[in-house]
Amino acid sequence: MTSTLPTTVDPKKLQEVLDGRWAHVRRDAREHLGDPEFAPVYGETMQEARERITRLSKKLADSGRVGLGFPKEYGGQDDSGGSVASIEMLAFGDLSLMVKAGVQWGLFGGAVQLLGTKRHHDAYLRDIMSFDLPGCFAMTETGHGSDVQQLRTTCTYDPETGTFDLHTPHQAARKDYIGNAAKDGRMAVVFAQLITQGEGRGVHAWLVPIRDDEGNPMPGVSIGDDGPKAGLNGVDNGRLTFDHVTVPRDMLLDRYGSVAPDGTYSSPIENETRRFFTMLGTLVRGRVSVGGSAGSATKLALEIAVRYGDVRRQFAAPGEPREVVVNDYLAHQRTLLPALATTYALHFAQEELVSRMHDVQRAAVLDETAQRELESRAAGLKAVSTWHATRTIQACREACGGAGYLQENRLPTLKADTDVFTTFEGDNTVLLQLVAKGLLTGYREAFGSLDGWGRAAFVAEQVREAVLERTAARALVQRLVDAVPRRDDEVSLLDRGWQLKAFEDREKHTLDGAVKRLRKGATTPGLSQFDAFNDVQDHVLKTARTHIDRVVLEAFVAGIERTADPAARALLGRVCDLYALSTIEADKGWFLEHGRLTPTRAKALTAVVNQLLKELRPHLRTLVDAFAIPDAWLNCAILAEEPGRQEAMARHDAAEPPVIIGEWLPDTPAGATSRR
Amino acid sequence: MTSTLPTTVDPKKLQEVLDGRWAHVRRDAREHLGDPEFAPVYGETMQEARERITRLSKKLADSGRVGLGFPKEYGGQDDSGGSVASIEMLAFGDLSLMVKAGVQWGLFGGAVQLLGTKRHHDAYLRDIMSFDLPGCFAMTETGHGSDVQQLRTTCTYDPETGTFDLHTPHQAARKDYIGNAAKDGRMAVVFAQLITQGEGRGVHAWLVPIRDDEGNPMPGVSIGDDGPKAGLNGVDNGRLTFDHVTVPRDMLLDRYGSVAPDGTYSSPIENETRRFFTMLGTLVRGRVSVGGSAGSATKLALEIAVRYGDVRRQFAAPGEPREVVVNDYLAHQRTLLPALATTYALHFAQEELVSRMHDVQRAAVLDETAQRELESRAAGLKAVSTWHATRTIQACREACGGAGYLQENRLPTLKADTDVFTTFEGDNTVLLQLVAKGLLTGYREAFGSLDGWGRAAFVAEQVREAVLERTAARALVQRLVDAVPRRDDEVSLLDRGWQLKAFEDREKHTLDGAVKRLRKGATTPGLSQFDAFNDVQDHVLKTARTHIDRVVLEAFVAGIERTADPAARALLGRVCDLYALSTIEADKGWFLEHGRLTPTRAKALTAVVNQLLKELRPHLRTLVDAFAIPDAWLNCAILAEEPGRQEAMARHDAAEPPVIIGEWLPDTPAGATSRR
Repeated sequence: MTSTLPTTVDPKKLQEVLDGRWAHVRRDAREHLGDPEFAPVYGETMQEARERITRLSKKLADSGRVGLGFPKEYGGQDDSGGSVASIEMLAFGDLSLMVKAGVQWGLFGGAVQLLGTKRHHDAYLRDIMSFDLPGCFAMTETGHGSDVQQLRTTCTYDPETGTFDLHTPHQAARKDYIGNAAKDGRMAVVFAQLITQGEGRGVHAWLVPIRDDEGNPMPGVSIGDDGPKAGLNGVDNGRLTFDHVTVPRDMLLDRYGSVAPDGTYSSPIENETRRFFTMLGTLVRGRVSVGGSAGSATKLALEIAVRYGDVRRQFAAPGEPREVVVNDYLAHQRTLLPALATTYALHFAQEELVSRMHDVQRAAVLDETAQRELESRAAGLKAVSTWHATRTIQACREACGGAGYLQENRLPTLKADTDVFTTFEGDNTVLLQLVAKGLLTGYREAFGSLDGWGRAAFVAEQVREAVLERTAARALVQRLVDAVPRRDDEVSLLDRGWQLKAFEDREKHTLDGAVKRLRKGATTPGLSQFDAFNDVQDHVLKTARTHIDRVVLEAFVAGIERTADPAARALLGRVCDLYALSTIEADKGWFLEHGRLTPTRAKALTAVVNQLLKELRPHLRTLVDAFAIPDAWLNCAILAEEPGRQEAMARHDAAEPPVIIGEWLPDTPAGATSRR
Repeated sequence: MTSTLPTTVDPKKLQEVLDGRWAHVRRDAREHLGDPEFAPVYGETMQEARERITRLSKKLADSGRVGLGFPKEYGGQDDSGGSVASIEMLAFGDLSLMVKAGVQWGLFGGAVQLLGTKRHHDAYLRDIMSFDLPGCFAMTETGHGSDVQQLRTTCTYDPETGTFDLHTPHQAARKDYIGNAAKDGRMAVVFAQLITQGEGRGVHAWLVPIRDDEGNPMPGVSIGDDGPKAGLNGVDNGRLTFDHVTVPRDMLLDRYGSVAPDGTYSSPIENETRRFFTMLGTLVRGRVSVGGSAGSATKLALEIAVRYGDVRRQFAAPGEPREVVVNDYLAHQRTLLPALATTYALHFAQEELVSRMHDVQRAAVLDETAQRELESRAAGLKAVSTWHATRTIQACREACGGAGYLQENRLPTLKADTDVFTTFEGDNTVLLQLVAKGLLTGYREAFGSLDGWGRAAFVAEQVREAVLERTAARALVQRLVDAVPRRDDEVSLLDRGWQLKAFEDREKHTLDGAVKRLRKGATTPGLSQFDAFNDVQDHVLKTARTHIDRVVLEAFVAGIERTADPAARALLGRVCDLYALSTIEADKGWFLEHGRLTPTRAKALTAVVNQLLKELRPHLRTLVDAFAIPDAWLNCAILAEEPGRQEAMARHDAAEPPVIIGEWLPDTPAGATSRR
C-alpha cells in the first residue's frame, strides 16, 4: 500500500466539508452558544438540574435560535434542515437542554405546527417559540411505546356537548416518559384513539391543557414524576393520566382528520393505516435530530479520548528513555480510529438525510414515495448512529481509564445522557425492522402496522433496484462498481469500487436470502405467521443493517466527491477506506461464509486495516480538530485543568536529551487540587 | 437436534451447583443481608450517598461479616475464598457499599495484613475490621496507574532521625482515585519508591496517618476530592499529596523488605522485580473480587430483563388475538440468552478461581508457579467478566426500553456503578497483555515489567502443554477431545468434545502465530523493540482472549460434572452448548479463515444456535431464578411496583377466551403513580 497522504492536512479544510449545507447555522452556534453556561454541570441534584435547564430553555428561546423550523409568518424561518443542524450543535452542550429543546420546539411545537391547522398556529405557535407555553408530546404509554397504533387512551366525541372525553382506561394506558410533564408543561399534545358516532377512527392528537396558571394539574389530569433517570436529569419526564377530561372540539389537531359538530368524521386520507403513518411521518424530524445529536456526542467523546491519548503515557518503550503515549499503541488505535472513521461516515450520511428531509418537506406537492424512503432512512440511521454513539462513548470512557470515570472529565455525562437514544424516538431494533420491512415490500404497499409480516407481498426483486438508486452518489458509485473486474480476487482492498461492490453485494444477497426464507415460512403448513417471521428475525434485521451500511458508505463517497482541497480529500479517502474495511472486517464471517473473501484475502484485510491505522495515526488530532468543537463546550478537566499543561506536553515531546521517563505533567509544586 | 431437556427444572437444584464451595457464606448473606437498607437508593446527592455508605460500612462491620479473610487470632476466619464469596453477595446490594468494603477490608486491611508484620497486625487489624480505623490504599498516581513499578512518589530513609521522608515530587505523582481518601480515611497504605543509603529499592508500602482525630489533614498531607463520578458516588474517592511528610521507620510494611536503623536494606527476596511482583501478587484478592462482583451485577441485570421480558408485550401476533411478550422474539433471545449462558460459564470459572486462590494462599509453602498462574487467571477473568458485565447490563437496559432508563428500575445504577470495573484494579487491556505474557514466557521467567516483550525468551511450545494441564476438568476434557475423530467435519456441533477441541485448537494456533510473529519482529533489522511488539499487539491480545475462553469453557464442563440432579445437569449442558457455540459464532471469521469451519458448517452453526435459543426459551426464568437473588435486593419498580401485577400477568396468560390485546397491566383505576 503506497501512502498518498500529505504530512499535514489543514483541519479547517475538513471542517468546511463537514459543516456542509447548513454551515451558517453551525457557525452561528459556535459564535453565540459558546457560552460556558450551556455546558453541562456536574454533581447537581435532579431538582437543580431541572431548574437550570428550564432557565436555559427560556434563555435559548430569547436568543431567537429556536425558530428555524417554524413558519416565517410566525417569526420562524421555514428551515427544517437548519432546525436539525441547530439541534446537532446544541448537542455539543448540555444534552438535557438539547432534549428539552427537542421536546418543546421539535415534538410539541412540531406537532402543533404539522398536525394542527391555522387556528392552532395563530393561537399557540408564538407562545411555544417563546417558551411562554411549555408543552408535552404525550404519545408513549406505559404499555405501548413502539406500537403506537395500539395506544389505549381514548378520546370520545359527544355531539350533545360538542366536546371530547379524554380518558385513560387503565394503568398501562397512562402516558409515560413524557418530557416537560413533571414540572413545566402547561399543555400537552395527547395522542389517543378517536371515537365518534360509536366508531373508532384510529390515533389522533389533541391539544390539552394539563396545568393551570398556578401550575396545578387541571381537573381530571393526574401528573406523576418519572423521577431520577440514568441521565438527562435536567428534563422533567413524567406521567399523565386522564380521568374523563373534557376537551373542546376545536382542540383536535385536525390537519389529517376532523369531527363535525354532529360527530361526522372526515379526513383527506381515506385509509386509516395510511392516515396514521402519514401523521407519524410528518414527525420524522425528531428521529433525524436524535441521530444527529448522537453524532455530536460521539464527536465530543472522541475529541476527549484522542487528545488525552496524545498526552497520556502508560509504559516505557523497551530499551528507550521514553514512555509511550497511549495513542501509539495498536490496541488503542484499533479502538479509536475505526470508531472515528465510522463517525465521519455517519456524519456524511446524516448530512445527506437532513438535506433530503429538508427538500421533501419543502416540496410543493408531497412525494409519498420520497417521504416513505425518508422515514426508512431516518429510522435506520437513527438506530445505527445511536448504537455507534453508545459503543464509542463507552470505548472513549475506557480509553481514558480512571479519569474517564470522573464527571469533571465529561465522558460519564455523555454516556449517561445519550444512553436512552437507543430506545427513545423508536427502539432501535424496532426501527431496523421498519427499515427491513421497507426493503422487503419495496415501499409499494401502504405501510401496515409491523404485525403484517406474514401477509406482506414479497416483491423485493423488482423494487430492490429502485432502492439501490436512491443515494446521492449513485451514478458515481455505479461507475466505480462497474469498473471492478468480475473476478475481483486480485483487486486491491483499497479499491473504492471493490469496497462499494462488497457492501452492495452483501446487501443484495442478505435481502435475497431473507425473502426466500420468509416465503418458505409463509407456505409451511402449521407454522403460525408469527413463527414464520420470528424464525427469520435475525436475518431480517441483518438485511436492514447491511442496507444502512451501504447507504452510509455511499454518502461518504459523495462527501469526498464534494471535497475540493486535495489534502483534505486524500485524508478523507483514507478514512473512508478504514470505514469500509473495518466494517467488512467486523463481518468477516459473512464474507468468508459466502465465498466473498478467500481465507488469504481475509488475513490480508486485517493487515491492511492495521496499515491504515498506522497511516492515519499522525492525523488523529487533525481528524478531531476538524469537528471544530469550541473549547468552552468541552468542559473536560483532563484537557483543561492544569495551566500550561499542553505546552508542557509539547515541550516534553520535543526535549531530548534528557527526557525524563514518566514526567508527563509539568513539575509544578505539588498540592491538593480539589476543584470543587 | 433432539431435545433432551425435561419440561421443568427445579431452580433450587441449579442454585445448589452455583452456590458451590462457599454455599454457607451465600446462604448467610441471603438470610442476614436481605435488609432493604443494603439496596441502592436513587436520586441522592453525592454527600448523602457518602454519608449513607459510611453508616452502612459501620453497620456491616458490626454485623461481624467483614472478617472472613483476616487471621483467626484477630477475630477473623482465615477464609480467603469466603471473603470473596461474601463480597460477591454484597455486590447484589449497593455497589458503593461493596466497593467501600473492598477498599477498607480488602485493599487497605489486606495490605496491612499481607505486606505488614505482627506489630502492624497487633496495632491495627482489629480497628480496621471494626471500621474504627478507616483507611486508604494509596497506590495509583495520576501519572501512573497501570505501570505501578514506575510510581513517582518517594520515601527516603534518613538514619539521622530514624524516619522516612514521604514526598510527592510533582503533580503527576499525586495519589489519585483513592477510595476513603476524600472523607473517611484516617490512615493510608502509601506505595512509594523506597530510597535508602542513596539507593532506590523499588516500590514498598508504608502505613501513613493522613487525618488527625478531628478529621483534619495531617501536616504535609494535602487531600483533594475526585468529586462526582459516573457511579459509585457513595465512595469518597480522592487525591493525596505528600509534602515531605515524616514517617516513622516502623511504619514501613516490612514483610518483603525492611530498613535497619542505620539504613541498611534487607529483603527475603533478592531480585527487585521478583520482590515487586510477589508483593503485588499477595493482593490478587482485589482483582478476584472485582470479577466476582461484576458477575453478581450481571446476574441482577439479567434477572430484571428476563422477568420484565416475560410480561412486557410489544406487538400483536399477526392474525392472533394476543400480543407477543418480548422474550418470545428471536432478536430478544439473541440478546439475553447467550449473555445468560456466558454468565453461567463465567460463574463456574470464577468459582474455580476463588477456590484455587483460597488453596494457594492457605498452602504451608508458597507455590510460586501456582501463584503466577493464579494471578494470570485472575487478571484474565477480571477482564473478561467486567467487559461481559458492561456489555450485558447495557443490553438489559436496552431490553427494558424506557423503563430501563429510570433509576427506580435499578439498571442505570448497575450500569453506572460497574462501569469503572473495566479499568480499575487493572485496565482490562493491560490485564490481557499480562495473561498473554504469561502464556508466551510460560511462567518460566520471573515477570519483568511489561516492557520486556522484545527480550522475552519464546519458549511457548514446551510450556503450552503445561498451561493446558491446569484447569480442574483437564482429564475429562482430554478424554472428550481425544474422542473426536481427526476429520471432525461431520461431528455434531453439540458434541462437547468437538467444542472443547475447537476452543483449544484456536488457542494453540493463535499462540503459535503470535510467537512466530514476535520472533520475526525481534530479528527484523531496524525495527525497534516497541514496534516489533506493537505491530502484533492485536494478535497478542487475541491469544489471551482465546486462552481465557478455553479456561472458562473447561470450568463450565467441570461444573456440569459436579451436578448430580439429572434435570439440572441436562439444562446446564444445553446452556454450555449455547456458551460454546455462541462464542464460536462470534468469532466465526477466525474459524472460517483458518479452515476450522467450512462455510456450510458455519451456516449450520447459526441455525443450531437459534435452535438452542428456542429450546432454552421455556427455561429462561428458571435460569435467573437459580441465582437466588432475594427480592429485597432487586429494588426494581417494574418488577415490584403494582400490587398484584405479577398475578395479573399469570392470569392474563392463562385466560382464554377472551384475551384482550395489550391490556397487560391489570385494569386497576387509573391515577397518578408518582412514587417519590
